[in-house]
Amino acid sequence: MKYQVTFLPQNVLTHVPGGMTVFNAANWAGLAIDSTCGGRGTCGKCKVRLADGANSITDADHRFLSPAELTDGWRLSCRAVMHGDCVVEVPRLMTSPKAALLGYGRHVALDPNVVKVFVRLAEPSLEDQRPDIARLRDALLVEGYEPRPIPAVLRALPRALRANDFAVTAVMCGEELIAVEPGDSTNRAYGLALDIGTTTVVGALVNLKTGAVEAVQSTLNGQAPFGADVISRVSHTMTEPDGLLTLQARIVDTVNSLLDQLIATSGVARDNIYEAVAVGNATMLHILLGIDPEPISVAPFIPAVTDALTLPASEIGAAGGLRLHPQARLTTLPHLGAYVGADIVGGILATGLARSHDDKMRLYIDVGTNGEIVIGSSQKTLATAAPAGPAFEGAQIKCGMRASAGAIEGVRIDDDVRLQVIGGVSPLGICGSGLVDAVAEMVRRGLVDPSGRLLRYDDVQGRLPDTLLERLVTIAGVRAFRLSAPEHSIVLTQQDIRALQFAKGAIAAGVQVLMAQLGVLAGDLHEVLLAGSFGSYINPASARLIGLVPWVPLERIVAVGNAAGEGAKMALLSFREREAASRIPGFIEYVELSGRPEFNDIFTDALAFPAPPVGAKPHARITA
Amino acid sequence: MKYQVTFLPQNVLTHVPGGMTVFNAANWAGLAIDSTCGGRGTCGKCKVRLADGANSITDADHRFLSPAELTDGWRLSCRAVMHGDCVVEVPRLMTSPKAALLGYGRHVALDPNVVKVFVRLAEPSLEDQRPDIARLRDALLVEGYEPRPIPAVLRALPRALRANDFAVTAVMCGEELIAVEPGDSTNRAYGLALDIGTTTVVGALVNLKTGAVEAVQSTLNGQAPFGADVISRVSHTMTEPDGLLTLQARIVDTVNSLLDQLIATSGVARDNIYEAVAVGNATMLHILLGIDPEPISVAPFIPAVTDALTLPASEIGAAGGLRLHPQARLTTLPHLGAYVGADIVGGILATGLARSHDDKMRLYIDVGTNGEIVIGSSQKTLATAAPAGPAFEGAQIKCGMRASAGAIEGVRIDDDVRLQVIGGVSPLGICGSGLVDAVAEMVRRGLVDPSGRLLRYDDVQGRLPDTLLERLVTIAGVRAFRLSAPEHSIVLTQQDIRALQFAKGAIAAGVQVLMAQLGVLAGDLHEVLLAGSFGSYINPASARLIGLVPWVPLERIVAVGNAAGEGAKMALLSFREREAASRIPGFIEYVELSGRPEFNDIFTDALAFPAPPVGAKPHARITA
Repeated sequence: MKYQVTFLPQNVLTHVPGGMTVFNAANWAGLAIDSTCGGRGTCGKCKVRLADGANSITDADHRFLSPAELTDGWRLSCRAVMHGDCVVEVPRLMTSPKAALLGYGRHVALDPNVVKVFVRLAEPSLEDQRPDIARLRDALLVEGYEPRPIPAVLRALPRALRANDFAVTAVMCGEELIAVEPGDSTNRAYGLALDIGTTTVVGALVNLKTGAVEAVQSTLNGQAPFGADVISRVSHTMTEPDGLLTLQARIVDTVNSLLDQLIATSGVARDNIYEAVAVGNATMLHILLGIDPEPISVAPFIPAVTDALTLPASEIGAAGGLRLHPQARLTTLPHLGAYVGADIVGGILATGLARSHDDKMRLYIDVGTNGEIVIGSSQKTLATAAPAGPAFEGAQIKCGMRASAGAIEGVRIDDDVRLQVIGGVSPLGICGSGLVDAVAEMVRRGLVDPSGRLLRYDDVQGRLPDTLLERLVTIAGVRAFRLSAPEHSIVLTQQDIRALQFAKGAIAAGVQVLMAQLGVLAGDLHEVLLAGSFGSYINPASARLIGLVPWVPLERIVAVGNAAGEGAKMALLSFREREAASRIPGFIEYVELSGRPEFNDIFTDALAFPAPPVGAKPHARITA
Repeated sequence: MKYQVTFLPQNVLTHVPGGMTVFNAANWAGLAIDSTCGGRGTCGKCKVRLADGANSITDADHRFLSPAELTDGWRLSCRAVMHGDCVVEVPRLMTSPKAALLGYGRHVALDPNVVKVFVRLAEPSLEDQRPDIARLRDALLVEGYEPRPIPAVLRALPRALRANDFAVTAVMCGEELIAVEPGDSTNRAYGLALDIGTTTVVGALVNLKTGAVEAVQSTLNGQAPFGADVISRVSHTMTEPDGLLTLQARIVDTVNSLLDQLIATSGVARDNIYEAVAVGNATMLHILLGIDPEPISVAPFIPAVTDALTLPASEIGAAGGLRLHPQARLTTLPHLGAYVGADIVGGILATGLARSHDDKMRLYIDVGTNGEIVIGSSQKTLATAAPAGPAFEGAQIKCGMRASAGAIEGVRIDDDVRLQVIGGVSPLGICGSGLVDAVAEMVRRGLVDPSGRLLRYDDVQGRLPDTLLERLVTIAGVRAFRLSAPEHSIVLTQQDIRALQFAKGAIAAGVQVLMAQLGVLAGDLHEVLLAGSFGSYINPASARLIGLVPWVPLERIVAVGNAAGEGAKMALLSFREREAASRIPGFIEYVELSGRPEFNDIFTDALAFPAPPVGAKPHARITA
């Protein structure tokens, strides 16, 4: 049951489920209501006037608002729970919060989950025997914070206060008080944004005071020796004793060595990194947290947990965990389902999909072994995962390789074949974006027919120049097209084209199922967002031509880069965005394709290379 | 700011601070409102009608109550926060809860903090892909519980569900889901009540389903080699590197060996002990939790924390902590101040002091190195600690010893001296209760004058029989009275009598300060409750005669035994009582004696042995 809430004077309208607070509804709609405590009812700043549908008066309201204000409809928005449509008057922000441009053109208020507050406490006396923690708590309450001290803080507090003349900096991570530091250290606060991919792990060290990224590093996931994809990783946990612990130790080691590099590069002190936010697919994050991932991998595909989780970073794995501040916390963003994970939630956060008030229809695709697909607007959004297989990663392709030096990443076929090779070296193989380009160009030039058949010399003789015809070869009885100069012998086989058809067909079918369910046509799509490194390198025209994405004007196809990692950064820098991320699963319907009888038909149809719409002009990027 | 709440039809009236819920106010007043979730807003059973001062409507109210009920003033009492006086109509309990007789004649509803619920979950399918934890949570919500799973549960859940056909028992400790067990294990739930004394540690293994105590054991606190009292223990933490960790390890070892004995005696499985509740003085509990106790020991006497704390039992100390269920929780009751600790809060809970609706004035004294004193009624209660010194423990007494075999524990002086000796053996020394008895009898027989002077042979010659006179001896120039037969040579010296005077004078002065502050006279006291083992063995007539307790009719002086431990048991067996315990500090004013200029005068006056009130008859127990 959703209710409509209208914010004035901005005249922003959104729909949220009953039981949500007005404060969170505003965050969801991208409106920043004043607050220092983060919606915990302790700072009293987030007051709004409920012009209509006035709410019950809570304890916190009584603490911060006068009887006249209460009568007039003023309430703390973080305590006001919605039970019906309402109209909310939001006062102008007292001070405009510092903000950073993050994600896909999103303006994010800097109000990180980690807050450091310097306090100078009155020294105890026989007349004032408040326990140490009460003394500190009282001082923080004055500043609008009411954190829960963790045991480590209680253990260290007596000495920390007395060694520093009762002048200390409280470090709060969310609702927890995780550390007390000598003197005023409020200027040193950092967080780690982690994107844990099956293949690659990316870490960004973020300055929580300024929003600046101090350092970024990426490295291979140390689990790689146990298999290239999530299924082989899960198999290892099932078949080997302590397999899960082994894999967990590998990813913990990977993150720790990333951290070492980030610290070395940036000069930031380890003890000033108080929090990590991690995104990744459900299997990767289950393994990171030591949670049995097995049921994710077999029908009916059930994760143990999809909620956002927060736990001590030191408790991840057996050997002391992630080496941030000893009391640092790790938060994972939530998953939408077994195969639409926190990385996609990060991407949705970063792109504003499902939340923008413009009500424009957007399609988000993260192309990989699993193609994750999200489509919708703030009205309604659907998500699914399509089993694309490893073709886009260059696997199961005769001359396939990862997108590294020597990989053909772009292909243009005119009178002859022109290649764009990563690193500008001689080609060693072809990566996913090169494969898409190559096949698109072969389709465009009529070397491959709409069914995906690689034509024979006889079929195209006279229609195409000899420079192309001589590239049609047969290797060990298999028809192929030679992409490189003869001495490098890089070819694309009929099987390779079939593999690409299966991969793009799965994603295209998934897109079609969701579009049909929403009643959306290609022309309704305002943007097609391609996420991940593959999305950044793919030629939009080629992707469209082979039918990987619906036929929309090219300028509507946008690469959004590592949107997952951007989402993690946003969650680090803004608790409101994190709150919004934790609500994303409640706003998005997860569609399971496996169970659908119609999926196989749609998939079969989607294997073909469709003719462009009448009058449409295919484009191709000029390469090399 | 306190408000008055009246419960109907019981017509029970209590005063509670604003901001408290009606549910907690009822518990405070000893009324059990129906509830299975423990006041967490999830079971919907605790509804009451706010006949007057009707409350705002909360989210939970909307979930469980009809619009008609809401209009009629019905609310969930656990969500209804009080902002003024109110009158509350409480429906009759649907089923009367099982109860146990605990503490000092208190009838305690069995609703332990540890709850086990058996659930049989629907197996997942492609149509029902809820994550494991959501599946479990949904099933528990139907039963009225909404726990927060700890990471260990998430780690084990996929296997636990699938190995048991999705039929499991959820183990909840407070708001946390701490374990999931195969099949139906709801009948096995135990808790550990711990009374951690400076000298002695007592553990009781309690059956949380029946309220029965399965086993009780006591043992010496393993910290004893580091000093007999809290001050020497704290010194050790200050002067030795890792001194705090050493002492913590000692008490953890002590509790673990107690546990081994309790388990061996009772046959209860270790993995079915899910929770421990500990009471003890602030120093002992700080050390148990690894919190620096140093500032407790020096003026102005500041504990790090006085709140009730809950943390994983496995995290107490370095080596795996308390060996209960691996995910068991330890809860400590709150302290009132540096020297009125959780043991006294346990005693207040067990005796109902500060909560009984009879409004009778009660005095509670726990006699030891520190005499803790609590006095009051449900209207107002004060507490303090008086520095009695070690005389009551038999220390600094020439022939003093602990209350063990061979200790004189009772003395009667008529024509001769008659002794009661622990174990019925030849006397080896005298313990605290014997000391009180001996001095009281010597005062009664005129061997000691009101100022505490031991009279000389010449002073009493002719007035007392020779059997007594010949016991007046001088040993190394010090006057003394021989208690035993000459061959055992157990004497009481003038110094011993002075030591007792200082000890009882400190406590008596503390009592006087509190009584004066409350405006209470001895005749107003309905009961004088003597807690602890000393309180159990002391002769009430002697305690009264030496002025340790105010002069009240003897039947009003009651030994309440190990009330601290009873309080711990109550907190184990009833979350309502635990909730009440956590509120006790808010209802009791802690009085610091050190800072009071008048204390020394009152103390000096209290050293004397006062004459009984006119017409009063001293009594003495007939011994041996």
